[in-house]
Amino acid sequence: MALLTPDRLFPADPRTRGIARELYQSVADKPIISPHGHTDPRWYAENRPFPDPAQLFITPDHYVFRMLFSQGISLESLGVPRADGGPTETDGRKIWRLFAENYHLFRGTPSRLWLDHAFESVFGLTTRLSAETADAAYDQIADCLQKPEFLPRALFERFNIEAIATTESPLDDLRWHRMIRDSGWKGRVVTAYRPDSVVDPEFDGFADYVAAFGALTGEDTATWEGYLNAHRVRRAYFKEFGATSTDHGHPSARTENLSRQQAAGLFAKALKGACSAEEADAFRGHMLTEMARMSLEDGLVLQIHPGSYRNHSAPVMARFGRDKGFDIPTRTDYVRALKPLLDAVGLEPGLTVIVFTLDESSYSRELAPLAGAYPALRLGPAWWFFDSPEGMRRFRELTTETAGFYNTVGFNDDTRAFCSIPARHDVARRVDCGFLASLVATGRLDEEEAHEVANDLAYRLAKQAYRL
Amino acid sequence: MALLTPDRLFPADPRTRGIARELYQSVADKPIISPHGHTDPRWYAENRPFPDPAQLFITPDHYVFRMLFSQGISLESLGVPRADGGPTETDGRKIWRLFAENYHLFRGTPSRLWLDHAFESVFGLTTRLSAETADAAYDQIADCLQKPEFLPRALFERFNIEAIATTESPLDDLRWHRMIRDSGWKGRVVTAYRPDSVVDPEFDGFADYVAAFGALTGEDTATWEGYLNAHRVRRAYFKEFGATSTDHGHPSARTENLSRQQAAGLFAKALKGACSAEEADAFRGHMLTEMARMSLEDGLVLQIHPGSYRNHSAPVMARFGRDKGFDIPTRTDYVRALKPLLDAVGLEPGLTVIVFTLDESSYSRELAPLAGAYPALRLGPAWWFFDSPEGMRRFRELTTETAGFYNTVGFNDDTRAFCSIPARHDVARRVDCGFLASLVATGRLDEEEAHEVANDLAYRLAKQAYRL
Amino acid sequence: MALLTPDRLFPADPRTRGIARELYQSVADKPIISPHGHTDPRWYAENRPFPDPAQLFITPDHYVFRMLFSQGISLESLGVPRADGGPTETDGRKIWRLFAENYHLFRGTPSRLWLDHAFESVFGLTTRLSAETADAAYDQIADCLQKPEFLPRALFERFNIEAIATTESPLDDLRWHRMIRDSGWKGRVVTAYRPDSVVDPEFDGFADYVAAFGALTGEDTATWEGYLNAHRVRRAYFKEFGATSTDHGHPSARTENLSRQQAAGLFAKALKGACSAEEADAFRGHMLTEMARMSLEDGLVLQIHPGSYRNHSAPVMARFGRDKGFDIPTRTDYVRALKPLLDAVGLEPGLTVIVFTLDESSYSRELAPLAGAYPALRLGPAWWFFDSPEGMRRFRELTTETAGFYNTVGFNDDTRAFCSIPARHDVARRVDCGFLASLVATGRLDEEEAHEVANDLAYRLAKQAYRL
Repeated sequence: MALLTPDRLFPADPRTRGIARELYQSVADKPIISPHGHTDPRWYAENRPFPDPAQLFITPDHYVFRMLFSQGISLESLGVPRADGGPTETDGRKIWRLFAENYHLFRGTPSRLWLDHAFESVFGLTTRLSAETADAAYDQIADCLQKPEFLPRALFERFNIEAIATTESPLDDLRWHRMIRDSGWKGRVVTAYRPDSVVDPEFDGFADYVAAFGALTGEDTATWEGYLNAHRVRRAYFKEFGATSTDHGHPSARTENLSRQQAAGLFAKALKGACSAEEADAFRGHMLTEMARMSLEDGLVLQIHPGSYRNHSAPVMARFGRDKGFDIPTRTDYVRALKPLLDAVGLEPGLTVIVFTLDESSYSRELAPLAGAYPALRLGPAWWFFDSPEGMRRFRELTTETAGFYNTVGFNDDTRAFCSIPARHDVARRVDCGFLASLVATGRLDEEEAHEVANDLAYRLAKQAYRL
Repeated sequence: MALLTPDRLFPADPRTRGIARELYQSVADKPIISPHGHTDPRWYAENRPFPDPAQLFITPDHYVFRMLFSQGISLESLGVPRADGGPTETDGRKIWRLFAENYHLFRGTPSRLWLDHAFESVFGLTTRLSAETADAAYDQIADCLQKPEFLPRALFERFNIEAIATTESPLDDLRWHRMIRDSGWKGRVVTAYRPDSVVDPEFDGFADYVAAFGALTGEDTATWEGYLNAHRVRRAYFKEFGATSTDHGHPSARTENLSRQQAAGLFAKALKGACSAEEADAFRGHMLTEMARMSLEDGLVLQIHPGSYRNHSAPVMARFGRDKGFDIPTRTDYVRALKPLLDAVGLEPGLTVIVFTLDESSYSRELAPLAGAYPALRLGPAWWFFDSPEGMRRFRELTTETAGFYNTVGFNDDTRAFCSIPARHDVARRVDCGFLASLVATGRLDEEEAHEVANDLAYRLAKQAYRL
Repeated sequence: MALLTPDRLFPADPRTRGIARELYQSVADKPIISPHGHTDPRWYAENRPFPDPAQLFITPDHYVFRMLFSQGISLESLGVPRADGGPTETDGRKIWRLFAENYHLFRGTPSRLWLDHAFESVFGLTTRLSAETADAAYDQIADCLQKPEFLPRALFERFNIEAIATTESPLDDLRWHRMIRDSGWKGRVVTAYRPDSVVDPEFDGFADYVAAFGALTGEDTATWEGYLNAHRVRRAYFKEFGATSTDHGHPSARTENLSRQQAAGLFAKALKGACSAEEADAFRGHMLTEMARMSLEDGLVLQIHPGSYRNHSAPVMARFGRDKGFDIPTRTDYVRALKPLLDAVGLEPGLTVIVFTLDESSYSRELAPLAGAYPALRLGPAWWFFDSPEGMRRFRELTTETAGFYNTVGFNDDTRAFCSIPARHDVARRVDCGFLASLVATGRLDEEEAHEVANDLAYRLAKQAYRL
């Protein structure tokens, strides 16, 4: 019991802490709604043991390996695969030791909170990870991973997950989702529609993907109408596998509302690979509005995750490929960028557009005022680098006064690290309860109201906003 | 006594809270100086009863109806007038019930604080507004509104308002201000000079307004010199009705210091409606510098309220017109934007330019360093969306270390919601006392000094900066 | 003992405060590492008495005189030298009285903390400065300054400075550093290489300086290769006088990685004074990458201090020259700006690039993610206007969760105000211990770990990062 303290993340003031503790106790055991994330549906489909501790905690987690890399530890030595297939470390224990020796680097980070939570509450570790405790921890986790109660489905149930969404390309055959469904297992794993490869003219192989998209859907995707229909068909297919949302991760929040002719013209250019950077950007922006229109038809919630400068380091991209911790947030405008979409569909109360940000300066200046006015708009929770205690606190402090609680959508973990899911939701619940406790302690909210809001933020709003 | 707690908004730590309480007690009953706002002078002139509770609290308050609208409640059902004069709800009780049923939407917002304060301290309500309490609350407020002690002047006196400014166009005849003056009532209601319609080439009907401006002042406003003289004449007229300030709400903080020839050329173009967007912007920017020069002559304080993207939703603008909760803050530059004006007149100790912002990222980066250097520059208080406990706290935390307290100007409420005035000043006094208490509790300020500063922030600086 | 309270700057909550106090006690007496600053090496070389109190505390300190100026006090009356050599106040006592009468202006500012710390702990004052106490304070400080224990070297030792860096131009002959070395005094005063005059094509007299640079180094600085060699030669010379770093204060964080041909072409143009603003900017940007490459060769740490709009007021610049409190921070991009340099050398673990900011909105959005990924990149501490309790708290709150503690470099004071050095380091130690105490009190860090980190932040990281 050495890794976690029971009152962690509550405000320091004893009276406020007492209120936070009470609020938290009323939501701590609520089921987890995880409406947006990147876990692998194959885990739930095949239900095979996770491999060794290093492959569970280090090699696939860009939060973890980028921090080690930032201090001069090579990605090869952490087993991160090379783009050219060249050799990297494969000995899980060696990777784990390197990680353990450098565990102090994570002091003050959310990774440390998530890791300790998983170490203690999932694997029963009770001493801080370090060079000294590395081997014992490795052995204990490796042991656990062989047991049936640590298989993906068992953990899913133990984590009390009521519903989880994965994210797939329109070109994905959803075989793992089909296998889950056919297995008769009752865990609710749904997909989400993430069409980057077929909406981004700058995506490598765009024209080929659009052709495959046509083949898959039986639509003539060489035409603008056929292309839009292919989206309709494929969205319907995703809905069969539980999808309630689409997801879009563009470099900016730009939207457009082009005429049919303009859009069709850009699409034709895009298929020929002839779009300028500006035209590609306009096309992506226009597709957000098209997706929103389809959402009005089919009820899928539209998520916008903008503003990441992907693969910032050219040498890292060349050697290791995408998603290696070098996606860096950029300044992002929402006021002008979202206007075309909002003018088109922003007043529709039947539509839900959830917008996220990596630019915290937009919380109070742009996003809260927009979400506090447009019926279709909701604010996603603190995202990525801001999925952290201070990040969540700032999110509430900067958005609540203008947008209230009910234009936000509860928490989502956005993770590919399965064991971190309970930890992340626990952090969110604690921080939100701490925030609510501060409002109570300073006379801004009644305690009874705070209990209702705590439940809304921990559970109800995510279900409602994502229609789960 | 259920709606408000006596220690609300003070820091949670008991010792710090004790200091805050003592500081607050020494300023809680200070008269209100309200040097900038948008109440209607007709209220004070005619002194007629306010209409029903819905028309007092909901229909005219964009803070309130935009939040309800953001959750799918139509503006028509809230009685907000349509641009085409079409039907909207007129039954105050029905509007009120809709509002009451959705009162939970305001949890955590300043509107909730202001409303509860008015409900309790003005109208004597003691239970939280909800669907259940809606009718009783409506009846009680409606009853009060018929009594003489709830007439505008009586409330003005009860609110302990020492001076309040309204805001009028140069084309306004100030009849209500004249009527107040002629009535012999002693309440101090002054006007302020807000010349948008005659300084903004993009204002609908600009040329006509400039012509009317000429007719009103007897100056030849077809010429640049005559136009400037018309301003001088009208500013003098406004001063007769107590004006101590001018106010300017441009899309950006841009200023220019053009040559006489350039300015006259732009003005001629503007009269012909031939300005490009860039030229219109330059003209507006130049007029700020002209206004500052006139301020040096006549002593009016110049206020700049930049950075709002007005009427963001085209459909809302088309259906309901301006000021419907769709003014969204934008990123605003001050460093380059203010330089022309500051190079021209920024070192004049006899001039006061008060600058506000809707972009909190500029507090510590731009505004505090500028105000901490230029003798003519002062920082206005946290504005609009930031007229809130967290917004005010951030304002002090982000500006004080660089600009100190004495380059700020105390509080102004900027409101058109009459009953919220005492609440807003109370919030500001509490938050400022809380901030000062934190400085005392952490050894950054003596308690004796803090008492002096508390009085400065609550009362003295507003009088001094606005020359009231 | 009236000026400072022993628990100043610790969190208000008693338990958290207790933890902070213990952490602080363990680092309060650590030697000072001051790896970046602007004290005058002549002081240590000649070891003559500082002149009067006004010349020690007011006339050279832009933090102090800009605040007084912002409230209408002329720079002449504060003894600030005029560019034209015209008369300004020379009576130190008169200047001091003006300062003392207006000491309330500094309430809530870090200057007040630094001044009070120096007044009390260096000069033994025990009553708050004011009009009443002005003369007594002046006399006491003036008295002290005549005593041997207040000579620069004695203060250096009393301040427990283990190492301090000054900042010099490549054209400086380092005579004072030589004199220090030759004196046999054991105080460690090192120089730092600040080549603005020979890397900025827009620097007044650039071509002449580059010619002088050639003469000084025996290289042909009319050629690109000779020019680069001159840097190498001069950097080596600076290393003889203890330099471990270079420093670069460009208007933006722009870097470039041009081809040899492009760079040589720009350099030739720069020597002719023919660079456009854009070309000058590109050249400066490219020189950062060249400097980084030389750092790989010679081990000097590269510091980037970008984003100040220098000499914002044209009239102040004309009348008083540079560094008069009118350097204003601007919005600064890092993500795109640093990419060329980072692509070139950012993965080198042997290189240390320390980046600072005046745009706090970049902490969490850009700088922490970059420093949390690139091995060569480290974050400098809260700088300039943010070298303050709230500024330091924000720095930790906004960077730690993403970059951790070990991608930061401890504190540096960046000051030219000698007596403020212990005060500034004390403030940093207190604020960092307060931040760590908050992590402990909220279960995010063990107390034992916090002690280790406290020592890292107060002492070890500065030594390590700056290779001192």
